[in-house]
Order: sequence, then structure tokens, then C-alpha cells
Amino acid sequence: MRCFLTILFLFVMCPSLIMCIGPLKKTEEPIDPGFCMNCHQGVTPGIFQSWAESKHAKKGVHCVSCHVDHQAASEQKSMVFPEKCGECHKKELADFRKSRHSIGFDRMRIQGEYLGIPQEIRAAFCERCHIIQKRCNSCHTSHKFSVKEARGPDACGSCHLGPDHPHKEMYETSLHGTIYKVTQDPERAPRCVTCHMPNGTHDSSFGIARGPAGTRTEVVDLKEVPISEEEVAKRRKEMIGVCSKCHSKRFAQEQLENADQVKEEGFQLLERGKEAILEIEKEGLIFPPVTERMPHPTEGRAMVLADPQLYIGTSHIERLFFTMFKFHNIRVWKSGYHFSPAYTHGQGWAEMQMDLIDIKEEAQKLRDLFKEMKK
Amino acid sequence: MRCFLTILFLFVMCPSLIMCIGPLKKTEEPIDPGFCMNCHQGVTPGIFQSWAESKHAKKGVHCVSCHVDHQAASEQKSMVFPEKCGECHKKELADFRKSRHSIGFDRMRIQGEYLGIPQEIRAAFCERCHIIQKRCNSCHTSHKFSVKEARGPDACGSCHLGPDHPHKEMYETSLHGTIYKVTQDPERAPRCVTCHMPNGTHDSSFGIARGPAGTRTEVVDLKEVPISEEEVAKRRKEMIGVCSKCHSKRFAQEQLENADQVKEEGFQLLERGKEAILEIEKEGLIFPPVTERMPHPTEGRAMVLADPQLYIGTSHIERLFFTMFKFHNIRVWKSGYHFSPAYTHGQGWAEMQMDLIDIKEEAQKLRDLFKEMKK
Amino acid sequence: MRCFLTILFLFVMCPSLIMCIGPLKKTEEPIDPGFCMNCHQGVTPGIFQSWAESKHAKKGVHCVSCHVDHQAASEQKSMVFPEKCGECHKKELADFRKSRHSIGFDRMRIQGEYLGIPQEIRAAFCERCHIIQKRCNSCHTSHKFSVKEARGPDACGSCHLGPDHPHKEMYETSLHGTIYKVTQDPERAPRCVTCHMPNGTHDSSFGIARGPAGTRTEVVDLKEVPISEEEVAKRRKEMIGVCSKCHSKRFAQEQLENADQVKEEGFQLLERGKEAILEIEKEGLIFPPVTERMPHPTEGRAMVLADPQLYIGTSHIERLFFTMFKFHNIRVWKSGYHFSPAYTHGQGWAEMQMDLIDIKEEAQKLRDLFKEMKK
Repeated sequence: MRCFLTILFLFVMCPSLIMCIGPLKKTEEPIDPGFCMNCHQGVTPGIFQSWAESKHAKKGVHCVSCHVDHQAASEQKSMVFPEKCGECHKKELADFRKSRHSIGFDRMRIQGEYLGIPQEIRAAFCERCHIIQKRCNSCHTSHKFSVKEARGPDACGSCHLGPDHPHKEMYETSLHGTIYKVTQDPERAPRCVTCHMPNGTHDSSFGIARGPAGTRTEVVDLKEVPISEEEVAKRRKEMIGVCSKCHSKRFAQEQLENADQVKEEGFQLLERGKEAILEIEKEGLIFPPVTERMPHPTEGRAMVLADPQLYIGTSHIERLFFTMFKFHNIRVWKSGYHFSPAYTHGQGWAEMQMDLIDIKEEAQKLRDLFKEMKK
Repeated sequence: MRCFLTILFLFVMCPSLIMCIGPLKKTEEPIDPGFCMNCHQGVTPGIFQSWAESKHAKKGVHCVSCHVDHQAASEQKSMVFPEKCGECHKKELADFRKSRHSIGFDRMRIQGEYLGIPQEIRAAFCERCHIIQKRCNSCHTSHKFSVKEARGPDACGSCHLGPDHPHKEMYETSLHGTIYKVTQDPERAPRCVTCHMPNGTHDSSFGIARGPAGTRTEVVDLKEVPISEEEVAKRRKEMIGVCSKCHSKRFAQEQLENADQVKEEGFQLLERGKEAILEIEKEGLIFPPVTERMPHPTEGRAMVLADPQLYIGTSHIERLFFTMFKFHNIRVWKSGYHFSPAYTHGQGWAEMQMDLIDIKEEAQKLRDLFKEMKK
Repeated sequence: MRCFLTILFLFVMCPSLIMCIGPLKKTEEPIDPGFCMNCHQGVTPGIFQSWAESKHAKKGVHCVSCHVDHQAASEQKSMVFPEKCGECHKKELADFRKSRHSIGFDRMRIQGEYLGIPQEIRAAFCERCHIIQKRCNSCHTSHKFSVKEARGPDACGSCHLGPDHPHKEMYETSLHGTIYKVTQDPERAPRCVTCHMPNGTHDSSFGIARGPAGTRTEVVDLKEVPISEEEVAKRRKEMIGVCSKCHSKRFAQEQLENADQVKEEGFQLLERGKEAILEIEKEGLIFPPVTERMPHPTEGRAMVLADPQLYIGTSHIERLFFTMFKFHNIRVWKSGYHFSPAYTHGQGWAEMQMDLIDIKEEAQKLRDLFKEMKK
């Protein structure tokens, strides 16, 4: 049956498709789009099929429309950059450039965490997501570029997940995510884009106050410049505008203010953990001492607690703080705004309290052991 | 298109809907239901749309049927309580009152864990789920109140999840949950309500022997009174009645008895952890000592191991026991009854064995360190 | 309505079904298949219904075709073994016998981990999955035996999940799994069988180099005999053949070679953890000492690091290594090949680095404490 369809395609539909596409060619040297397809529907049928089902195919946007020519497309790591997509999708590109997505790769490359891991494996870790700066198909997956797929929570969740930013998990365990999962109806319950990219904007920072990797309490813009209180208030109002589609403004405001308090509480716990470690450092009880370690890629020979702290080669007590700040505190406060009690509490607040127990007792033991050794 | 539909609704369907609803009004002062709708379909279209798709809308149950009048509805934290729903849904309310769901909020308010966390953040944690005592729309989500949605495992899973009661995760990783996920057919595989709320009962404790928060081996009823062996046997028989729709009675009984044994093994491991800590306490090696801590909200200045143990301000060794009893043992035995090998083993039994290693070695180290310090 | 359908079935469809099945009976003593059904559609309606919807029912394969006779079927733990299924499904059985699935139960029974846990609970843990050696219905779930269900990623994921082999989680958090989840279209994105059981083969080891429980770097075959470099290269080529349906051969090769490097990095980290513990053991600082422990079920009185290490009754430092090798390293390298950055990094590499911090500091503390005690 599939064989038959392929034959049908080759002899009937393909030429007519090519005829349709023909007059739309915009490249300087006219390239026959059938050139790519004749071969690629055989050697990479998955790509071909996805494209054939795309709106691009219907509108005559074909291989060379984006990949320029066959040589360019077949070169190592040939990629189509947002600028290329923006030739047609102007507003989307302009919005995208306002978002943190558009600086994701550049910011990654100056992070200590990135610089601290072997070059050959960065590709499998960090770059697989941060490449979003250079690839519209991070969300609009190749070669169908389906708007429906890109709008679903799973598109966002392919990067926004895991121990240090479990947006996907928090959403899925909230009532919002639960109802959306069950109904698949964005009018019945919000998905990520409902609140963060309303009305199709590609500026994913709509209505939220940005923070660098979500680890500081201060609110900054794309250039890391603190945002004014007025600007923060304006964004809160924008977000409440989204909520109030289904909730009363009063209720929405209460919920977000409650999340503000949860955030504040989490950061207070974090400070208590930090204090305990700073005391121990003053007493010279950190092992290995900072002077005997590999220097931090961006901060040098300093003990770094919280962003941009690393999880490599530190002492045990700093490592305890790393999980406290990077995994547990982030769950507390981000989950506060995403309304997932399981993440706010069991995987967040309770873990932070237990981290604090461990950090404080570890500090005391380091003292006791040290005193003994000095005897 | 949507604009057109809205206009169509306003001019054609809305008046006819109101006419339909009109004669059903039962409030003492006749209120025009169109009063709410005229405004709310604009200001909170999500609520309006959900209601419009509900069986309530079809049957003429409108805003004021439940919210009494506009003033009551717009007051802070206006809620519709189960008693209101029970005016129509009598049997459901009666069943619900037999279930632990109906005491969820009251029981939460006397728990040490609740009392031990800041007031301003309890709302984001505990209350979001325990409110089920006061809200039928915990499961029958507003304002569609879909029976289909409430019967799905995701409705239950929006609260029954996370490290200390991962019912959702255990079910989803069992063969039962897997087949239901794939087929979405409750005749092919059970979902939560198949076993726990069969035949539409709203007494969610059907066929199971209740235990307070699942942390004791004893079996008690809603008033915390131990249940007789005969009653326990009767409930087991009821549950086997459910299983035997698809399995032989003999097979079902074997499986549940196997789960009984798994539960017993888990609690035995727990006791070994407890013993190691109690010895250390007798030797005066707990830090901080109980006398120097904030008292436990319900147990006072006592070391509490297992329910109602807290995760705040204890020693490291008690904290190790907290995760052993609250996270890992619960997974072992609850997963035993939910047939998820991943949770029973990898996330349960194996973790408990590792907790025991850590507790025992910690006890020994506290002893060694103490002996050194006394020298 | 259901009652009506049942009656309809009993009086109209059931006799005609039996008539259809009648002539197909192949058992030596002719058994009336209606004998089982008359009773079982009442006592186990779930089984009956699933079978009634199966291809088996349509083709006249009924209860006694597989269960031989009523007495055999009603005996304790009556099971239908792959050999029985293979009477009709010859190629599938032959393929299956080439796969590791076909030795899953036997291999489990000689594992220290299995031997080290109480007999009465092995059934709830290990056997529930490893029984795949003896049950085609591990994947083709009873009694519908749906090919569609067995081909879905959830069928594989009912066993291949959890802390020590999170294939399901890694797949679901990869772009492959994400697109499949959204589209449910195996032409759009691969599911497990696309790469591991292509073209319907039941040899699940297609295109991969087997390793015992995935814990050694060496590559061995079903008899644990190392595979030649040529054989490994041949399998890599086979796998790239699958990838290149959607990706260029060059891209596929790059990705798999990157995963090779990630794997190598993970195992290097593991060695550093092992070295630190072996030094401590030489210095006689392991508690409890190996000579005072229960012997390892297969290795005797020896310290075992990495496979077949146990998580029961060891020292804390060995326990730290257990989670490093069994949970975290496996995530690093398996996730490398499954393209899930969240598992490779946050739940893998970062955790391994933190394990290493903890192991090294623990080693140092054991030394310090020991020196004090010898003073």
C-alpha cells in the first residue's frame, strides 16, 4: 500500500507539486526543487514525509527556499538560522529577539557550569537546548514545523524540565496541567503559551519579570539591568489579565501574591544555609580549601554559593548547598507560581528544610573533628 | 469565526438559553441568570465557556443556583461547599461523608507538619489539596463539573502524587496504568475509581483498610478507632471482588497477600532504623538535643520517629529516618498494592536499605566522634 | 444498555461465534470452547471482553487453544509459555530467542541483587518484569494481545523505567519521545521499536552492542562472550541505517559518536570514585569491614564496587558509589544514546560529580577520624 502511494506520488503528485512550486522560486540561480526531492524521498523518507505534510509544502516553500542550495545543505552542521525564517516570518523574529530564548546560546557560553565540563560532551548536555537561539525548529520541529505541535506544552517541556528547572513537571502536576492533559482544550485550561506567549507573541517573557537563570531575587532585563518597580508592576498586571480570563482579578492577584511570599520564604531558608557555610569558611574548615582547588571558570579562586556555583570539585557542605539552591529552592518558588503543591512542598520546601539540617550538622561536625585534630 | 460565534450566542442562543433556564429558578427572590452571564461571558470567558458546555447548563443549573446571589459570589474566597452540591446530589454527598476526603481539611489542621510551616505559605502547600473536604470541584473541576474528567486517573493524581504518596506515579508505572493510558478504556484496565470508588460510590475508602496517612501498620476507621479483623477481612473480600472482574479470585488473593508481605518487610526495615536512632539518643548523642529545639507542634519536647515526625530542625540522623519512613517505606508498601515494581524496588526497598546503611554508620560515627571528644 | 448488549451477545452472537470457532479446533480431544466462555463472560468479564476484541477471537483462537484444557488453566500459576505462542508465531519466537529478553528470568536468578532479598518479596520486585522470558504477554498484554499496544513505547516502558534503567523517562524527555507523544505517528518520530525492533523483529538487540545489565564498558553477546570490533562496527552501521530514515548518515554518526564520548567520560568519573574507595579499604577504614558482613551472595567475602554490587549492609562510602554507578552513570551514558539532555546532565553527570565530591570527602573524614582514634 505504501509502495503504491510512493509510486502514485512519483508519477502523479510530485510533478504537479513541482509545477506548483516552480513559479515561487526566489533564489538567484533557479534551482529545480525536484532535484532534492527525487533523491531525498528515498534516502531520508522521514524528512520528506514531514515536509510533505507541512504548510510549507502547501505554500511552495521547499528545500532550497531555506537551505539555499544543495552544497550548503550538505555541509557539516548545515543549519537554518532564525534570520532565514524571519525573511518570511518577520513579526515572529522581531518578537523572538525580545525574548531570553534569543540569547540562550550566548549566555550559556559564558556560564561557569558550561565552561567547567569537557568540551566533547557539552554538545550532549547544554547545547542541545540552548541552541534555541539559533534554531526556530527547537519548538517548530523539523520538517513539519507544525504550529499545533509548537503550541503544545510538550514543545516547551522538551527543554524546561529536570531537577534544576522542572517547569514541565510543575505544570503537569498542577490543576492547570491536569485539566489540559485530560481535555487537550486550551480554552478549558492554560498551557505554557497561554500565559507566557499569549496571542502568538514570540517574546516568551510576556508578563514575567526576568531573573538570570531564576536564581536571584532581583529582577533584571535582557541586558541584566534591574527592572524598575513600575515595570514589574506593569508586567504583573499583564499576567493578571491572562489569569482573569478564567479567574476573578482578585483571586488571580491573591494567588500571585501568595507565590511572592512562597518565593520570599524559600530565599530566606537559602540565606540560613549560606550563613552556616560562610562561618565554616571563616574558621578555615572547608575541604578542599579554595586555594587548593581548580579555580572557578568565571569567579577564580573564590568560594561561590548560589549562582554561578558549580557542582564539581567542591566540599561536601558546599555540594549540599548546591542542591539546596539549584534544585530545591528553584522548585519552591517556581512551583509557587505554577501552582503545583507536590513540587512546592514535597520536592521543594521539605527538601530545603532537610538540606538545612544536613548543612548545619555538617558544619558542627567539621568543627568538632577539627578541634579534635588540633588537640 | 469566534467573534461570529459570540455574536450568534449573544443574539440567538443566549436569550433562548435564559428562557429555558427561567422557569427552573428556585431562589426566593427571582434572579435573572442572564444578569451574571451578560457580564461574565466577557470578563471571565473561560468560566462561562466551561459552564456552557456542562450538564448543569443543559439542565438549567446556573450561576445563582450554586452561588446564591451576586454579592455572595463576589465576596472574598466565596466558595460553594459540598452541602450546596448535596442539595441535588444527595447520595454522592452521603457517600462522600463516609470517606477520608470529607475530613481532609480538619485532619490537616491538627498535623504537626502543617502547624510547623509559616502561615502565609500553607495555602500554597497543604491547603491546595486538603481543601477537598470543602470543595467537590477538587475532582469535578469548575465550571464544567465533567463526570468524565472526575473519573479519570488524572483527577485523583492531581493530589495523590509526589514523594510521600506517589499513587499517581505508582499507578502510571504499573501494568494497570500502562494499559489504561494506551487504551483509555476502563473496561480494559482499571483506573483509580475502578478499585477505590466502584459503581460510582463517593466513599473512596471502599475495599481498603484505612490507616492514618498510611504510616502505621494498624488499621483504623474514620474516627481513628482500630477496625476488627472481621471488618478487615470483609474489605479484602470486597476488593477481590473488583479484581476478579479480570483475574481469578485465587490470583487476586495471592497478589494482595504478596503485597501484605511486602508491607510487613518494609515496616521491619523501618524498625531497624528506629532502633539504631533510639540507642544513640539514650547515649545522649543526638544534635541538637531535643531539649534545645523548638518543641514539636503536637508532641512537645520529644524525639518523634515516624508519623507525626517533622523534617524541620532535627538532627541529621533523624532526617535520614524521615526520608526512610515518609518517602521510601510508603513507596514500598503502597506500591506493593499498586503493582509497580519500579516503585516497590528501585524507589522504595533499595532506598530503604541504603537509608539503613547511612543511619547505622552515622550512629557509629556519632559514637566515635563523641568518644574522641570525651578523651 | 450494557445489559442489553450482554443478552444480545448470549443469544445471537455467542452461538454464531462458537460455530465459527468450532471447525478450527485443533486439540486432540475436541473441547467445546463455549464451555469456558459460558461461565467466564460472567465471572471474569474483563478477560472475556479483551479476548472478544482480539484478533485471536476473529481467527478462532480460543481459551483452550492456548490453555490446553480447563484443568490445566485453573491450576495454580497456570501460564502460557512462549513455546505455545510459537506454535503459530514461529518467526517471532525464533527472533525472541536471539534477544536478551529470552534469558531475562534465568539471568535474574543468578544475580546477587535477587539472591540478597527475601524470597517472599522477590515476586513483587524482580520477577514482575524478568518474567518476560516466560510470557509473551509481558508486552502483548492479555487477553487482547494487541499488536498496536505492544508496539507503543508504553509497553516497553512498563519495565524499562526507574532509577537504574530509566529508558522510558529518557525517551519521553528526548525530542524523539516528545514528538511521538504529540503526534502518535511513528512515521514522524521514532518509538522504542523503531530503533530496537525494526521491521517487526523480536530480537530486541538489533543494532546495539549488548553489555551485561549495561554496567560494563566491554561489549558481550548473549553468552557473555566479548563481541569482535567488526561485529560492533556492523551493528553501529545497522543502527545508523535506522537513523538515516530521517537524518543524514553523517549527522547520525556524529550523534552516536558523541554518545560514545559521553559514555567514556562517565566511566572515567566512575573510576575516580572507585579509586578513592579502594585506597580507603587498603587502609582498613571500611565499616563494617568485609570480614564482618554477610557474604555477597555470588562474590563471597569481598568488597564489590560496580556490578554486581549490592545496596544492602555495606558501608556508607560504598553506598555512595552504588548510587553513582547504578543510578547516575547509567543515566549519563544511556541518556547519551537516547538524546535526553535532562537525564544526561541534571540527573546524570551533575549527580556523578556530586557523588565524587561526597566520596572523596567521606574518605578523608574516615582517615581523620581514624587517626584521632589511634592517638
